[in-house]
Amino acid sequence: MALVNDFKWKKGMSVKELVSSYGNIGFQSIELKKASDVIVKMKKNNAKIFLTFTSNMVTSGLRGFFAQVIKLKMANVIVTTVGGIEEDIMKAKGEKFSIGSFENDDIELHEKGINRIGNLLINNESYMNFEDSIMPILDKLYAKQKQWTVSGMLREIGLMLNDDNSILYQAAKNNVPIFCPAVTDGAFGFHLYLFQEKHKDFIVDVVKDFGNILLCTSHDEKKAVIALGGGVSKHHAILSTLLNGGAEYAVYMTTAHKSSGSMSGATTEEAKSWGKVKDESDVATVIGDVTIMFPLAMINALEELDEDGILKEKRGK
Amino acid sequence: MALVNDFKWKKGMSVKELVSSYGNIGFQSIELKKASDVIVKMKKNNAKIFLTFTSNMVTSGLRGFFAQVIKLKMANVIVTTVGGIEEDIMKAKGEKFSIGSFENDDIELHEKGINRIGNLLINNESYMNFEDSIMPILDKLYAKQKQWTVSGMLREIGLMLNDDNSILYQAAKNNVPIFCPAVTDGAFGFHLYLFQEKHKDFIVDVVKDFGNILLCTSHDEKKAVIALGGGVSKHHAILSTLLNGGAEYAVYMTTAHKSSGSMSGATTEEAKSWGKVKDESDVATVIGDVTIMFPLAMINALEELDEDGILKEKRGK
Amino acid sequence: MALVNDFKWKKGMSVKELVSSYGNIGFQSIELKKASDVIVKMKKNNAKIFLTFTSNMVTSGLRGFFAQVIKLKMANVIVTTVGGIEEDIMKAKGEKFSIGSFENDDIELHEKGINRIGNLLINNESYMNFEDSIMPILDKLYAKQKQWTVSGMLREIGLMLNDDNSILYQAAKNNVPIFCPAVTDGAFGFHLYLFQEKHKDFIVDVVKDFGNILLCTSHDEKKAVIALGGGVSKHHAILSTLLNGGAEYAVYMTTAHKSSGSMSGATTEEAKSWGKVKDESDVATVIGDVTIMFPLAMINALEELDEDGILKEKRGK
Amino acid sequence: MALVNDFKWKKGMSVKELVSSYGNIGFQSIELKKASDVIVKMKKNNAKIFLTFTSNMVTSGLRGFFAQVIKLKMANVIVTTVGGIEEDIMKAKGEKFSIGSFENDDIELHEKGINRIGNLLINNESYMNFEDSIMPILDKLYAKQKQWTVSGMLREIGLMLNDDNSILYQAAKNNVPIFCPAVTDGAFGFHLYLFQEKHKDFIVDVVKDFGNILLCTSHDEKKAVIALGGGVSKHHAILSTLLNGGAEYAVYMTTAHKSSGSMSGATTEEAKSWGKVKDESDVATVIGDVTIMFPLAMINALEELDEDGILKEKRGK
Repeated sequence: MALVNDFKWKKGMSVKELVSSYGNIGFQSIELKKASDVIVKMKKNNAKIFLTFTSNMVTSGLRGFFAQVIKLKMANVIVTTVGGIEEDIMKAKGEKFSIGSFENDDIELHEKGINRIGNLLINNESYMNFEDSIMPILDKLYAKQKQWTVSGMLREIGLMLNDDNSILYQAAKNNVPIFCPAVTDGAFGFHLYLFQEKHKDFIVDVVKDFGNILLCTSHDEKKAVIALGGGVSKHHAILSTLLNGGAEYAVYMTTAHKSSGSMSGATTEEAKSWGKVKDESDVATVIGDVTIMFPLAMINALEELDEDGILKEKRGK
Repeated sequence: MALVNDFKWKKGMSVKELVSSYGNIGFQSIELKKASDVIVKMKKNNAKIFLTFTSNMVTSGLRGFFAQVIKLKMANVIVTTVGGIEEDIMKAKGEKFSIGSFENDDIELHEKGINRIGNLLINNESYMNFEDSIMPILDKLYAKQKQWTVSGMLREIGLMLNDDNSILYQAAKNNVPIFCPAVTDGAFGFHLYLFQEKHKDFIVDVVKDFGNILLCTSHDEKKAVIALGGGVSKHHAILSTLLNGGAEYAVYMTTAHKSSGSMSGATTEEAKSWGKVKDESDVATVIGDVTIMFPLAMINALEELDEDGILKEKRGK
Repeated sequence: MALVNDFKWKKGMSVKELVSSYGNIGFQSIELKKASDVIVKMKKNNAKIFLTFTSNMVTSGLRGFFAQVIKLKMANVIVTTVGGIEEDIMKAKGEKFSIGSFENDDIELHEKGINRIGNLLINNESYMNFEDSIMPILDKLYAKQKQWTVSGMLREIGLMLNDDNSILYQAAKNNVPIFCPAVTDGAFGFHLYLFQEKHKDFIVDVVKDFGNILLCTSHDEKKAVIALGGGVSKHHAILSTLLNGGAEYAVYMTTAHKSSGSMSGATTEEAKSWGKVKDESDVATVIGDVTIMFPLAMINALEELDEDGILKEKRGK
Repeated sequence: MALVNDFKWKKGMSVKELVSSYGNIGFQSIELKKASDVIVKMKKNNAKIFLTFTSNMVTSGLRGFFAQVIKLKMANVIVTTVGGIEEDIMKAKGEKFSIGSFENDDIELHEKGINRIGNLLINNESYMNFEDSIMPILDKLYAKQKQWTVSGMLREIGLMLNDDNSILYQAAKNNVPIFCPAVTDGAFGFHLYLFQEKHKDFIVDVVKDFGNILLCTSHDEKKAVIALGGGVSKHHAILSTLLNGGAEYAVYMTTAHKSSGSMSGATTEEAKSWGKVKDESDVATVIGDVTIMFPLAMINALEELDEDGILKEKRGK
């Protein structure tokens, strides 16, 4: 049985050394180390990895890391909400988001034309520039075909961007589909609506896209879910892997708790009920803020996989 | 300035007496009383009320209360996730959900064919029966027309149900549109997909439905949001009222906190930044479980409105 | 197996009717109803009830309710923190606390000489008046004897107060000991220190008081813990019942979660490990704000016990 | 204004590089970086640092880190709960704690004589061995003098231990007082009680110790509070710095939220009301698990201070 070890700082300590120590500290640090181990395991066992995140994480600087994770073949399917799509495009087009405070005066911000997401700030101008960018993009899409699935559309958009740090760009380049079931729930939805008003035969076919996520894997393939935050993104990945027999590996990171019965707070305990999880070492739930925890768990996994030559091999492709 | 009062139990105390006392107890009890007051105020000022909830609340017994709230004209627009739609239909078709425990053994439940949502349980059989119910419904819809908006489809389904406690039924009967932007994110999405496989021209048009929620109100009309839980439902109601100039009134009830920057945890403080909220008495955020808090706040509001003859008037229609 | 029932409002609904319905709604409402049932059970089975709460709850209007609960013999031992003692005395001496906001400007409040506890406000003046009240009280205690246990001291102070809504007063009158292990952690501690500076032989003997809480019950007696919030109060009640063989009944209400490994977030699951809890119906953990939940659970229990003549009997004594 | 930056992993990344990046990611990662900066600032400005933690953190491997932090002169006053004292002594005497799971079967553990604190496990044997260790220690203390303050007693015990990783040992060696206002709330309290039963004139004087914490600093000295977790420890440090005019710097790390009005969830916003905090850069509140966050913030601060020669200088003393 593993023992609690006294943690000690060593000068110049690496993230890998710290996360390794976490495994013997206690409480959520243990779960975080376990999450990292499960990520290593899912990769080594060639599972198809479904990575889900919410739009506020794309507002944050995790956006570039998600793009890198895709590039490193650590995510094979993406599920997210439309705000994340919008903000990835905004950033790819050069918009800058700035850092404010949870305690900012919202009325004052409103007068300055600034929108607040937690302690991050987006100017109204960025949304207006997004409108200017998206309309010609929709024109191009429409010129190609009248009916689109969401993932199909996002792939096309990704190919039009040219930003190494863009999630859409890296996903398109690496053949990673991005699913976004609630595609109309954001400024993008508004622009789709305006476009359709002018082009009545323009259709976004979400039902067909359900087929795409369903068929992007199979019962035979090993499957893994890394769900950051909750909501529709998390649920959609779980649903589509379940319809394929359930995931063998699952890592959930969330600030929500299971006490309200919400999807956001559902733990990987339930994953055991899918009947495919082999043992405790295949699942981990970590409670806390993803902006702190996901880099820790993923960096440690990347370092380990890199040492084992698994990351390098893929990178070479 | 209001004072803290020593709370005392009186035999046979009514919910209204208790919630009234809450206003002078402290912490979340004060916020809950305030939420109830904001609900009364939005109704008295004839605001169009957007009520949002997540699917786990429909799993719970709040489902009948939501139906009643719609019947009593206390909600004019509904936004929810597709799990809630499915379960409302299941219950209308006679399925029974049972009460388990947060600590149930999930592997054991799996072997018995039981699904757990927090401390509530749904049999696999209920999902199978849902499949049997939904297919002929889709046939009927398709016979009428090939392209549907989600809200249009849900209205038709509501009219086919015959259950006073059904959200879809009461919404259809009372001309309350139900929006569900992520309509494919559930068993219903799977059935839509299977149906489309057989009927290639069957289309669910989510873009057009964005127009419907956008145009269901206007800049001139007073608007209110009651958001129970977070996620896409909450965001969609806020987005569509914002595009109409912002809501004058907002009540959020959630277990999420603002510290993660998520939509689920966003408070009504931000609502002030919309520029239409007049003062502190127009918004309230209550932290806690909706199954306990929403009945308290809404019952107190219903009793007050009933005493003032406002509820009665509407009921008579 | 109990079923989920559609909840419906009835005009004039009582708290008892609502809490009864809670048992069939879902998530925390079910746990709250269970908590109420455990309270009824512990009383009917003549368990010695340890009630613990934190000082912010005494800042709130729960203070009068705690006094009433003691008067109604629903609490036989109290454990709390010293802030609660101070504020109970302040209120007994006529101080009024007022209602502010979680969003108050703290710098502004500071300039006005106002202290904020969440959304409640206490004037500096109240603390100064407390100083004026407590010094003659300490003089009287010292005149009687030089060494005091905390519970002995609090009993004497309770007898000096004359306020039906006072926790100390009702506890003293009803022979309910109040334990406060961290007695110096507040303004009261400061005054004890100043007093001791002038009277070097004045001693507060916390070690002896540990004996008092240990010996206030026994292995043979049935024991119950109702822990509101966490911290030292909760831990002290659990410790002293454990040293007497463990409690048969336990109700925890808290906003903390078990994920951090803290005492505040520890659930009643662990109570099963004491070996005396007979079955699931003897323990309940409810997650949420005590100002909302404790009145609900306790009122329902009081109404039930009153109907069964159990409360009346005691009241007649 | 600082901008959000796309985060990218670099092979062999150090903790310092990661925490530095955190400052431009978002949400709690920004607050964590800020907390680290405040720690650097308090040290550079020679503030007296009050470090508080709860006993579950001493159960965890943070115990060795706390000892190291004391040794490195990064904490000048300690406030904790008695469980932490007990477990520090147990570990110094060679007891090993092991790693379990939040989902362990508590009844089974009970049968095996194992106690669970979150996902950590302590054998009953360790408590029994503690009893064997503590009794001769109390004998020695009593032989020296009959009346002890808590901090005086803990200093003596620290000097009897011989473990570089022990909090008590390092504190005693480095003249860092340890305050523990609720000293009887644990097994140690029970042993003090048993000892007093045999030696009636043995007194633990908590009132006198209040004077010690009060006089360990002054109005003139700069003061800082690093509060890990909440409860009595956090409150006691805030109280004693407040009575000395308030702290100039404050870092709070907690899983509690301010919504319940508890001390555990109180944020550093309130610290501004003390009137001594100069600006935003002097305070930080981070929401999350201390086992993950404290090492990150403190390691980054240690690396920075070390680079600036500030840590080295102190170390040389």
